[in-house]
Amino acid sequence: MNIVYIVFVLLPAIVVAENPCCSFPCENRGVCMREGGGYTCDCTRTGYYGQNCETPEFWTSVTAALKPSPETITFLRSNFKWFWDVINNIPIRNVLMRGLYIAVTGKVDSPPLYHTGHDYTTWDTYSDRTYYARVLPPVPTDCPTPMGTKGRKELPSPEYLAQTFLARRKFIPDLRRRTSVLLGFAAQHFTHQFFKTDFEKGAGRTWSDHAVDMSHVYGHTAERQRQLRTMQDGKLKHQWVDGQMYPPSLQDVPVHMNYHPDVPEEKRFALGHEFFGMLPGLFVWATVWLREHNRVCDVMKELHPDWDDERLFQTARLILIGETVKIIIEEYVQHLSGSNFQLFWDPELMFEEKFQYQNRITVEFNHLYHWHPLMPDQFHINGTTYDMEEYLYNNDLVFKHGLNVTVDAMSRQIAGQFGPKNIGAVNLQVAVETIKKGRELRLQSLNEYRKRFDTPPYKTFQELTGDEELAAQLEEAYGDIDAVEMYVGWLIEKPVSGNVLSQMFLEMGSPFSFKGMLANPICSPGWWKPSTFGGEVGFNLVKTTTVRDLFCRNMNGPCGLVSFAVPEDVQPTGLPEDVEPTEEGGQCYKDGC
Amino acid sequence: MNIVYIVFVLLPAIVVAENPCCSFPCENRGVCMREGGGYTCDCTRTGYYGQNCETPEFWTSVTAALKPSPETITFLRSNFKWFWDVINNIPIRNVLMRGLYIAVTGKVDSPPLYHTGHDYTTWDTYSDRTYYARVLPPVPTDCPTPMGTKGRKELPSPEYLAQTFLARRKFIPDLRRRTSVLLGFAAQHFTHQFFKTDFEKGAGRTWSDHAVDMSHVYGHTAERQRQLRTMQDGKLKHQWVDGQMYPPSLQDVPVHMNYHPDVPEEKRFALGHEFFGMLPGLFVWATVWLREHNRVCDVMKELHPDWDDERLFQTARLILIGETVKIIIEEYVQHLSGSNFQLFWDPELMFEEKFQYQNRITVEFNHLYHWHPLMPDQFHINGTTYDMEEYLYNNDLVFKHGLNVTVDAMSRQIAGQFGPKNIGAVNLQVAVETIKKGRELRLQSLNEYRKRFDTPPYKTFQELTGDEELAAQLEEAYGDIDAVEMYVGWLIEKPVSGNVLSQMFLEMGSPFSFKGMLANPICSPGWWKPSTFGGEVGFNLVKTTTVRDLFCRNMNGPCGLVSFAVPEDVQPTGLPEDVEPTEEGGQCYKDGC
Repeated sequence: MNIVYIVFVLLPAIVVAENPCCSFPCENRGVCMREGGGYTCDCTRTGYYGQNCETPEFWTSVTAALKPSPETITFLRSNFKWFWDVINNIPIRNVLMRGLYIAVTGKVDSPPLYHTGHDYTTWDTYSDRTYYARVLPPVPTDCPTPMGTKGRKELPSPEYLAQTFLARRKFIPDLRRRTSVLLGFAAQHFTHQFFKTDFEKGAGRTWSDHAVDMSHVYGHTAERQRQLRTMQDGKLKHQWVDGQMYPPSLQDVPVHMNYHPDVPEEKRFALGHEFFGMLPGLFVWATVWLREHNRVCDVMKELHPDWDDERLFQTARLILIGETVKIIIEEYVQHLSGSNFQLFWDPELMFEEKFQYQNRITVEFNHLYHWHPLMPDQFHINGTTYDMEEYLYNNDLVFKHGLNVTVDAMSRQIAGQFGPKNIGAVNLQVAVETIKKGRELRLQSLNEYRKRFDTPPYKTFQELTGDEELAAQLEEAYGDIDAVEMYVGWLIEKPVSGNVLSQMFLEMGSPFSFKGMLANPICSPGWWKPSTFGGEVGFNLVKTTTVRDLFCRNMNGPCGLVSFAVPEDVQPTGLPEDVEPTEEGGQCYKDGC
Repeated sequence: MNIVYIVFVLLPAIVVAENPCCSFPCENRGVCMREGGGYTCDCTRTGYYGQNCETPEFWTSVTAALKPSPETITFLRSNFKWFWDVINNIPIRNVLMRGLYIAVTGKVDSPPLYHTGHDYTTWDTYSDRTYYARVLPPVPTDCPTPMGTKGRKELPSPEYLAQTFLARRKFIPDLRRRTSVLLGFAAQHFTHQFFKTDFEKGAGRTWSDHAVDMSHVYGHTAERQRQLRTMQDGKLKHQWVDGQMYPPSLQDVPVHMNYHPDVPEEKRFALGHEFFGMLPGLFVWATVWLREHNRVCDVMKELHPDWDDERLFQTARLILIGETVKIIIEEYVQHLSGSNFQLFWDPELMFEEKFQYQNRITVEFNHLYHWHPLMPDQFHINGTTYDMEEYLYNNDLVFKHGLNVTVDAMSRQIAGQFGPKNIGAVNLQVAVETIKKGRELRLQSLNEYRKRFDTPPYKTFQELTGDEELAAQLEEAYGDIDAVEMYVGWLIEKPVSGNVLSQMFLEMGSPFSFKGMLANPICSPGWWKPSTFGGEVGFNLVKTTTVRDLFCRNMNGPCGLVSFAVPEDVQPTGLPEDVEPTEEGGQCYKDGC
């Protein structure tokens, strides 16, 4: 038995030890390639040279010396509010905003260098859009350990990791930033237009168009779009309930939707994305975009009585894409970034820059965006509390309470805090699957991704977690800080003061987010002009819409609270009992914030 | 009858006269949009302002005043050889080459503004790659005349135009530039990797990937590629005939091919492009790229014994894409441009520029590239003359004469001259169809395209043709110089001294060509490095391969003539009897050059 063990377990290790790229010897984005018995690092345009691309060129040294650390930048922008209040109102904000655009989007390779179909650059990397791109190539297949050369020969089980580090013991609300449930569903609704893993084909495959294209509203195929359209005046099909516009019944518009078999036929709706009938929060977003589309069609029709259905539809779509980008950058990302610098969207800032108006969704971005801690276990609407199982598939409650009240309620409830031990039971299996998929994809370690995004790798488990007990458990699980998996590391990382997300989330997420939005063709010099959006009226919609506008102009009656954060002067719903108001008007745990 | 005529022919004209965009009032790339009873021009970023974008901004005037005319530039670069001989050998050539790259590629909208699916900018313009892009939107549907407001209410019949202006009376050889038949087939073989009209779906649809991707060698679908590959050592399937490598028999590799039913089963070959079994000239190019691919696989395998089939295949493909671009820019385009400035390919020249590494084939580029005058009526190989009907589908003659001799013969025969009355009988129907497709697509007139490409519109028919008889006939046909169709105008345009193509061809073709090649992902800063091509050896193949290298290293025995032009000291084959040698060693007609 022992001999068999040696032959089958150790022998491969001896053979594979020959691949010198397993230890990721090339630094600073150098490309490792086996050559003869050794390896070479291709340091072209890394700004470094030497066997391992370890020696900086002169200007690289100068730039590196002048550049503040990511932590310093985060600290600066999360504090000194008086300073930022001044900056936000003077022209230098353009310089800063451009600088941020350039700095973050510059971290994304465009065109992509790798995709999930090959471990190296190929023509398909560029041309086959059914694969996710990837930032770093996978760990080679023939390495001594799953993470290359570091860590244990066998990784801890995904179930163990999920239970130990991720499973929610008790709901932890996001008291730091008071993120609302409305934002949580905005995230889910927004990102599922481009995160569309094609599970049947594999963890690295996608049926997305890699862009903010509103395909979750319009359908991702010509056929689905055709089914959802009235083919008159540009409008989408809808039904009227109590004088308000809602998505059409699935009985009337038989597109493919994923409903639980228990949902009665007459309570199913036809939506752009087959998944969006699952949660009332998604249904709310689907409804408001439907109304906005049809409203914009009316506006355009009045301006352009000569336009046919097709032109009204297509132009409304471009306007809605613009409104989405506007809201996401200026309100959603603004909130998540926790920055006192007021972010704004101005495509013109990039017109004189080297910038690629093309985008590819990376599989790392997808894994990074698994934000299940945000999801609470209960939902509170106008005095009624719904447990998750009552909430799932129960779009009826939107009709019961009314859209206005539902949106107001979603804006008053604080979402879960991002971080360890806060994924609810209903989502824990998703976390397990994400870890499994990460392994299938042979994703490199958290520390390799930190290096890729110009962030120093963690040296100790304590440094990563900021918590002794977690650090000890994590060390037990992985053995080596360089072997911690990306997704697990992200979720367990110590929080950044004043931020919703951890430092590494910000460092990796911002490039993908900004790149994805600024690289949209509507932001390109040729497209960014009034005529693309049907004239000045449409262009102004794109340039001015806020999330409050979006909801309030599409709901009858008075508009309640519409916010990505529960305001300080509003008593949030659904907080645990050991949270109480502070003197400053916020909330804290009894034993401290 | 007359009243019916008035009602059905004139009434629509009266109604449609209301669309003010029919007269293309917006100048300098302004976008026309109906608004109320009138129109607006969107002049954003055109450099002009005013109702019709007719007034230049200050810097626009300055730039325009300093810019030499296209004719001047062509004159300068086609003459003063001594001057260019100096320039070609000093570093300033980099500045000039970069300037040319920027000037020509800047004329292509990227991402595209229009596609053949809509008359205006839509999301599908960007996302639906099954449509050709287009440079200019179509003539509106509701205009007084087919070309807008100019010209006759009915266009002359395509058959009449083809017969009168395009049909070859007698073969006119390209004595100006001595273009070889080898170049003609290179053009056909090269361009059909990205000109792939999907006729079943319509004149504006394509099954191409809009790039130099060598899909004509590897197959355009994963399935065809798989069928063509051996799945061993990266190689493509092949057969050995007399010790030389040829494409496999269709019996062994049953991919879809378009063969004439008369071609016996055993004389059919399986090639990357289903069309390429039709002409021995295409078969020659298919064969040499097949051999090169398999040769490169051997080179890579020796350098990287650890690589599997897939990596060898994929890397060889990238190397072949690079070799193609190298040959096309430095030898093929060089020859066609007739420039004394030695063009060269250096992607690094664009690394600091605003430049989009993405490309979309426009339908105008496709129409522009209908170069059927180049095709002779007869082919001369080693003393044997083949008429077109003996040549069509007769790949046997490559085996009969040998690949070396066939290539040598193709390099010794002068192709047809570009221009009026030189399309052979076998291709005339293609010209007719091209005119028809142009009408289906409602392509704007030649003069509108001239304006779009910063070239003054022609004022008279004489100016366009440089020939009184042709001018009179053309005026008779079209009535107005502003109503001449693009494709007919291109073919009939007076030649530029020392050039293969006409001025407008150069003005429109160069942007599309350079954009298409420089925007290839292999030219992007992230890709352009040794490791992308399997190391320095592969990278050097990309950076140094010539068309002579390509053929000579893939043919057994001594290598004959391999040239895109018949050299001055070589007696060309197949010239008409009234052409005789000049004292300078060239050829001229008896009654003058």
